[in-house]
Amino acid sequence: MATFGDIGLAAGVNVLSALIFLIAFAILRLQPINDRVYFPKWYLKGLRGSPARSGAFVSKIVNLDWHSYIRFLNWVPEALRMPEPELIDHAGLDSAVYLRIYLLGLKIFVPVALLAWAVLVPVNWTNNTLAKSQATDNLQYSDIDKLSISNIPIGSPRFWTHVVMAYAFTFWTCYALGREYEKVATLRLHFLASGRRRPDQFTVLVRNVPPDTDESVAESVEHFFLVNHPDHYLTHQVAVNANKLAKLVKEKKSKENWLDYYQLKYSRNQSKRPVTRTGFLGLWGEKVDAIDYQTAEVERLSKEVAEEREKVKTDPQCIMPAAFVSFRTRWGAAVCAQTQQSRNPTLWLTEWATEPRDVYWNNLAIPYVSLTIRRLLIAVAFFFLTFFFMIPVTIVQSLANIEGIERTAPFLKPVIEIPFIKSLIQGVLPGIALKIFLIVLPTILMTMSKVEGFLAISALERRSALRYYYFNFVNVFLVSVIAGTAFQQLDSFLHQPANEVPRTIGVAIPMKATFFITYVMVDGWAGVAGEILRLKPLIIFHLKNFFLVKTEKDREAAMDPGSIGFNTGEPQIQLYFLLGLVYAVVTPVFLPFIIVFFALAYVVFRHQIINVYNQEYESAGAFWPDVHGRIIFALVFSQIVLMGLLSSKGEAQSTPFLIALPVLTIFFHRFCKGRYEPAFVKYPLQEAMMKDTLERAREPNLNLRGYLQHAYVHPVFKNDEDDDDDDGCEDDFNAKLDENVQVPTKRQSRRGTPVPSRISGESSPEVVHDSQES
Amino acid sequence: MATFGDIGLAAGVNVLSALIFLIAFAILRLQPINDRVYFPKWYLKGLRGSPARSGAFVSKIVNLDWHSYIRFLNWVPEALRMPEPELIDHAGLDSAVYLRIYLLGLKIFVPVALLAWAVLVPVNWTNNTLAKSQATDNLQYSDIDKLSISNIPIGSPRFWTHVVMAYAFTFWTCYALGREYEKVATLRLHFLASGRRRPDQFTVLVRNVPPDTDESVAESVEHFFLVNHPDHYLTHQVAVNANKLAKLVKEKKSKENWLDYYQLKYSRNQSKRPVTRTGFLGLWGEKVDAIDYQTAEVERLSKEVAEEREKVKTDPQCIMPAAFVSFRTRWGAAVCAQTQQSRNPTLWLTEWATEPRDVYWNNLAIPYVSLTIRRLLIAVAFFFLTFFFMIPVTIVQSLANIEGIERTAPFLKPVIEIPFIKSLIQGVLPGIALKIFLIVLPTILMTMSKVEGFLAISALERRSALRYYYFNFVNVFLVSVIAGTAFQQLDSFLHQPANEVPRTIGVAIPMKATFFITYVMVDGWAGVAGEILRLKPLIIFHLKNFFLVKTEKDREAAMDPGSIGFNTGEPQIQLYFLLGLVYAVVTPVFLPFIIVFFALAYVVFRHQIINVYNQEYESAGAFWPDVHGRIIFALVFSQIVLMGLLSSKGEAQSTPFLIALPVLTIFFHRFCKGRYEPAFVKYPLQEAMMKDTLERAREPNLNLRGYLQHAYVHPVFKNDEDDDDDDGCEDDFNAKLDENVQVPTKRQSRRGTPVPSRISGESSPEVVHDSQES
Repeated sequence: MATFGDIGLAAGVNVLSALIFLIAFAILRLQPINDRVYFPKWYLKGLRGSPARSGAFVSKIVNLDWHSYIRFLNWVPEALRMPEPELIDHAGLDSAVYLRIYLLGLKIFVPVALLAWAVLVPVNWTNNTLAKSQATDNLQYSDIDKLSISNIPIGSPRFWTHVVMAYAFTFWTCYALGREYEKVATLRLHFLASGRRRPDQFTVLVRNVPPDTDESVAESVEHFFLVNHPDHYLTHQVAVNANKLAKLVKEKKSKENWLDYYQLKYSRNQSKRPVTRTGFLGLWGEKVDAIDYQTAEVERLSKEVAEEREKVKTDPQCIMPAAFVSFRTRWGAAVCAQTQQSRNPTLWLTEWATEPRDVYWNNLAIPYVSLTIRRLLIAVAFFFLTFFFMIPVTIVQSLANIEGIERTAPFLKPVIEIPFIKSLIQGVLPGIALKIFLIVLPTILMTMSKVEGFLAISALERRSALRYYYFNFVNVFLVSVIAGTAFQQLDSFLHQPANEVPRTIGVAIPMKATFFITYVMVDGWAGVAGEILRLKPLIIFHLKNFFLVKTEKDREAAMDPGSIGFNTGEPQIQLYFLLGLVYAVVTPVFLPFIIVFFALAYVVFRHQIINVYNQEYESAGAFWPDVHGRIIFALVFSQIVLMGLLSSKGEAQSTPFLIALPVLTIFFHRFCKGRYEPAFVKYPLQEAMMKDTLERAREPNLNLRGYLQHAYVHPVFKNDEDDDDDDGCEDDFNAKLDENVQVPTKRQSRRGTPVPSRISGESSPEVVHDSQES
Repeated sequence: MATFGDIGLAAGVNVLSALIFLIAFAILRLQPINDRVYFPKWYLKGLRGSPARSGAFVSKIVNLDWHSYIRFLNWVPEALRMPEPELIDHAGLDSAVYLRIYLLGLKIFVPVALLAWAVLVPVNWTNNTLAKSQATDNLQYSDIDKLSISNIPIGSPRFWTHVVMAYAFTFWTCYALGREYEKVATLRLHFLASGRRRPDQFTVLVRNVPPDTDESVAESVEHFFLVNHPDHYLTHQVAVNANKLAKLVKEKKSKENWLDYYQLKYSRNQSKRPVTRTGFLGLWGEKVDAIDYQTAEVERLSKEVAEEREKVKTDPQCIMPAAFVSFRTRWGAAVCAQTQQSRNPTLWLTEWATEPRDVYWNNLAIPYVSLTIRRLLIAVAFFFLTFFFMIPVTIVQSLANIEGIERTAPFLKPVIEIPFIKSLIQGVLPGIALKIFLIVLPTILMTMSKVEGFLAISALERRSALRYYYFNFVNVFLVSVIAGTAFQQLDSFLHQPANEVPRTIGVAIPMKATFFITYVMVDGWAGVAGEILRLKPLIIFHLKNFFLVKTEKDREAAMDPGSIGFNTGEPQIQLYFLLGLVYAVVTPVFLPFIIVFFALAYVVFRHQIINVYNQEYESAGAFWPDVHGRIIFALVFSQIVLMGLLSSKGEAQSTPFLIALPVLTIFFHRFCKGRYEPAFVKYPLQEAMMKDTLERAREPNLNLRGYLQHAYVHPVFKNDEDDDDDDGCEDDFNAKLDENVQVPTKRQSRRGTPVPSRISGESSPEVVHDSQES
C-alpha cells in the first residue's frame, strides 16, 4: 500500500521527466535546424519557407540568441493565445473540437474536485476504521486510503454523503456534457453554413448501382437521376477501381527515389558507380549497376502505368457500380442524401459524399450482402481479439525464448550464453512481444475497419477509436482492477450472479487507486510531455536530412508532421474520463492528478495542432456524438460500480436511490441524441435553401458544372487530368471563390492540406491546385 | 405427471367444447335475426341491406330451410375461397397481412413437426432413462416425458441429434421468416403503389411549429414551406385542439339517444310520461319529466357546441402548433417526410401523415421535451406494471373479502353467511380480482401508449402490442415455467450467475410441457372457437334490438362488428410461436397442438375478417417488422434455453456449437432489417416519381387542391364542412376517382369504412361521403 511519500516520490520522478522533456523541447524548438520538426504546419500551409532567422551559417543551425532561452516557456501562452475562430480557420474544425474534449475534462473535473475535497475528503478522513482494523487484524493501509471511502465503517450513515455526491457529480457532468454538445453542434452547423463552397455540399455518393445489360454504369446513373431528380441533377463521376494503378504509381515513385539517391551518391563520389542487387530490398540476387538498373525499372514502370491508366479508363471491369452524383443545388443534394431512392433498399444507396480527400477509394464497390457479412465477421473477430488476445502473445513469448533463438541463429550462441545477456533476453523478450502487439494494435483495428467497408477515412478512424476504447476498457481498465486475463474475467462474470459483478468490481476499485495514480502520471503527464518533444520525428528528420535531402522539395518530403490520430488519441482521453468519474466519489484524491493531465494535454495538443499536425481531412466534428456517448458510458459504469461498492458496505438500502441514476443518465443521453445528433448526420433543408438562395443572388452566372466536374476524380488521375485540360478556368474559379467567400483572417492563409493523407496514400487532389496557384 | 390418457381426456373436453361452439355458431349464423351479428361487415360496406331471405314473418327470424343445416360447416370453404387480392380489396391490407401471421405459423411448424417426429421422437423414445429412474428413485414420469428430451441419459451422445435439429429448425424458421418478410414488403409496396389516390400520399404531418409573435401558425407554416419547398408546396391545414368540442358533441349525441328512448317509451305507453332523475346516471336527484328534461339538455348542449365550434375556429389558443402540409406531388411529400427541415431538430418535425381516420387527434400538440419525459415515465411505469402488478391485485384481494362485503352491505349478511355461498365467494373473489385486472390490462396499456404521445391509432396499437407481449412473456410464460411472481423471478435472476439463468429455465421447460399443452387447448382451441360464436356481441345486439332500436339506422348503430384488435391478438399469437419454438427440440409432442391452433385460428379469423370485423384504419401492414422481430426474439430465447438445458445434461461441450445459433440468428435479423424494413418506414422516390408521372399523364387537369383541402379536417368539423360547401365537386371528384383507379373486383364494393374508429371516437370522415353518395 502506497503512502503519501511513495506517491510523492512517483510524482516527483514523473514531474521531473516531464520537466526534462519540456525543457529539452524548449531548447530544441529554438534551433533553426529543427524548425521543420517543430513547426511543420507552417511550412505545409506555405506561410514559412525557411527558418525565420538569417545570418551566419552557424546561426542557421544553432540559435545563439540567449534572450530566447530565458523565455523558454513562452510557447505556452503562444499556444493559448490563438482564438478559437482563428484556430478553426487555421487547423480545421476537427482539431478545434478535438481540443474541446480536453477542455470538457477540465470543465467537468475542476468543480467536481473542489466539491469532493470540500465535502468527501473531510467525511472520509474523520473516521478511524482503517486504523482500528490495523490494530485488530494487522491490516496495512496507506494514507491515500484514509482519504477514500474505505475509511468509513460498514453500515455507517455517512455513506449517504456519497450517494448525494454521486447525484451532484452526475448532475454536473450531464450539465457540462449537454452544454458542450449544444456548443459543438452549433459550431458544426455554423462551420457547414459559413464555410466556403465545397464540392461535397453538392455531391452525393451513390452505391450499389444495379447492373444493367443494356447500359453502362454511367448511363444508368444519368438516366436514373434525370428521371427521379429532374430539376436538381447536374452531373456525375463514376468511381473506377484504380487500386492497381495507384500501386504502380507508388512503386514508380519509390524507384525514382532510389534513382535519385544513387545519382546523388555518384555525383558526390564520381570514382565508383554505385552497385545494387536485383533481389528483395537489394540484399540478394545479381549485382548490377544501380543507376542503369533503376533507370530501366523506372522506364518499365512508366510504360506499365501508362498502360494501366488506359485500361482503367476503358475497361468496363474497372468501372465500379458507384458514382459521385452532383446536384445543381445544396437542397437537391440534401434531399437525395436523406431519402430512399429505389424500391429495393439495398440498391441505389445514397449518402453524403465526404470531402474528396476523405474518401477511402478502395471500399466503394462492396455490395450490400457482402457488407453485412463483413460486419458480422469483424464483430466476431473483434470479440476474440479483445478476450483472447493474450493467446497469440503467449505463443510468441513461448517461441521467442533462448532455445528458439539458438536454433534459428546458431552463430549467436556464444553471445547469448553469457549469463547477463541471457537473463536480459529472458526478462525482456516477453515484454517486447506484448509491447509489439500493443504497438500494432491500432493498425489491426484500422484494418478491421477497412475490411468492414467504411467509405471515409474519418469514418474508419471513428470506428477504430470505438474498438480501441472497448479494448482499453477490458484489457487496461478491467484487467488492472481485477487480476486475470480478460477471458478469465469474462468467464468469471458469466458464472457470477448479475448483482455480484458490480460488487466485485466495486470492491476492487478503491484498492487500485494508487496504481491508477501512477498510471496517470506515467502515461498522462510524462507521456504528454514526451509528445511535444517529438523525439522520433526529430531523429528521422535529421537522418533523412543528412542522407537523402538534395532539394528544398526533398526537405519538405522529409518532414513528418503527423496528425491528431483520433483513432488512438481519443480512446486514451476517454480512459481518463472513465478513471476520473469512477474515482470521483470513491477516492477524491485521484481528481487533481486527472486535472493536471487534462490541463497539460490541452496546452500541449493546442500547441501541436497549431504548429505541427497536418490536417488529413475535415469531418466538421462528426466524431462528437461518439465522444459524448463514451463519457455517458463511463458515467453509467461509475454509477453501477458505486452501487456495487456501497452494497458491499452494508448500504444495500441506498441501491434504489442509486438505480435511478443510470436510468436518468441514459434518459439524458437519449434526450441529447434526439436533440443534437441530427446536426451530425443530417443536413437541414432550411440551411441548404438559405445558402442556395444567397449564392444565386451573389453569383448568378456561376459555372457549377465546371467546378464539380473533376472534384471526385480518383487521386491517381488528378495529375494528368490537370495536365490535360488545364485551361486556367478552374484556377480562376478557385481564386474567385477564395476572394468571395473567404472568412477574413489575420494571416494570409492558403487553406487546404497540401500533404497527402496517410491512409489513402495518394496525393491529395488539392495539392495540384495549390502548387499551380503559387 | 400427465399420461397420454390425461392429455387425451383434456383434449377430448376441449375438442368437445370447441365443437359445441362451432355447431352453435353454424346454427345461429343461419338465423336471419342474427344476420347483423355474424355478417356486419357486409352491412357496413353497404352490400347487404337486410337478411337475404324474404317471406313470412317467422322466416325473417328463424331459418326454416333444413337444407342449410346439413351444410353447417360450409362456412369453412367459403372463408378459404376468397383469393388474397380480393381479400385485400375487401378488408384492407392490414387484415390480409394479419392472416399471414397464422399462415406463417403453419409454414414454420408443419415441416418442423414432421422432421421432429421423424427424427427426435424415435431418438427420445428408444431410451429407458425414465424407466430406470422410476425403478431406482421411484420417480414418476408420464408418457409425454418418454417422448421428450428428459428420456435421454445424462452425457449421452444422442444429444448431438438435438443440436443438429436445433440448427435445422433455426435454418428453416429463418428461411420462412425471410421469405415472408420479402412477400409482405412486396405486398405493401404494391399496395401503396397501385392503391387509389389517397390524401396521405401527398401529405406530411408537421409538428412543433415554433411560435412566432408576428405570425399565426397558419402563416408561419405557409411561409416556411413556400420558402423551403417552393416547387412542391400546395396547401396545409392547421390542427386545432377540438378535444373539448368533441366531448360536447359526444355528450349531445348521448342525450339525444336518451331523448329518443323516452319518446319511444312514451309512444308505446301513452298513459304515463316517463320520469327521470337529474343526478348521476339517473339514479339520484330530483325527479323530473324525462322528455322535457332531455329536450332542454339537448338544446343547451346544441348551444354550447355551437359556441365552442366558433371558439375553436377563432381562438388562437385552440390552434395547435402542428399542421398537415400537402404537396403538389408524391415526390415532394416523400422528400419532406424523410428530411430534416430546420437547424434545430426538435422544431418543424415532419413525418408521413397517416390516413385521416388513423390520426389520433389528441396527441398532435405535444412538444419535444415533454415527449421524451413521457417516454421515460411510461417506460418506468411499464416496468413496475410488469414486475409488481401482483401487488395491487393482492391488495384488492385482501380488501374484497367476506368481512369487507359485510361491512359495506350489511343487508347481504344473512345471504353471505350461508356456508356454501361463503366458500364460493372466498374461492372465487381473488380469482375475479385477477381476472378483472387482466381484462382491463389492454386498456391500461393502450392508455400508456396514448400518454406516450403517438400520433396514429395504428402506432398506438403497435406499441400496446409490444408491451402486452412483454407482459405475457414475463407473467404468463416465465411465471408458469418457474414458480413465483415476476418480481421474485427478477430478484432471483439478478442473484444468479448469468449462465445459470438459461439453465434454470431450460431445466424447467420439459416439465411444463403438459401444462402448456392444456393451455394451448383451452386458450387456443376452445378460445378461438369461442371467438367465432361472438357470444357477447350476440347478446348485446339482441338486447339493444329489443329495447332501443326504432329505425334501420338505430339497428345499424346497434351492430358491434369489433375489429381485429391487433394490440391483444398479435401478442397472443406470438405466445404460441414462443411455445412452439421452445418446445420444438425439447418436447416434439407439443407441435401438433400448436399446428391445430394455427390452422383453426387461420380459418376462423379469415371468416371473421371477411364477414365481421370492421377495418378501423389501414396502415398497409406497417406492423410486420414487429411481428418478425418478436418471432426472432422467441427463436433466440429458445436457443438460449436449449443451451441451458443441454449444459445441465452434461453436454457442456455442445455450448460452443449452440452459441453460434443466436449470433447467426441476430445477424439474420439485422440483415432482414436492412433489407426489408425501409419498405415499412420510407417511401422510395423512384416509386413516388413513377406514380406522379403516370397521374400527370392520365389526368392533366386534376384539381388536387380541392381534393386535399379538407382531407385532414378534425372529424367534429367534418359534418358542417360538408354541409357548408357541399357543392358536389368533391363527390364528383370521388366518383371519378373510383372509376379511374379502381381495381376490378367481382363485387361492387364501395370501399372505405363507414363505422367510426373505436379509439378516435368520432365519426370517420368518409362516412359522410358514403352516405351522401348513396
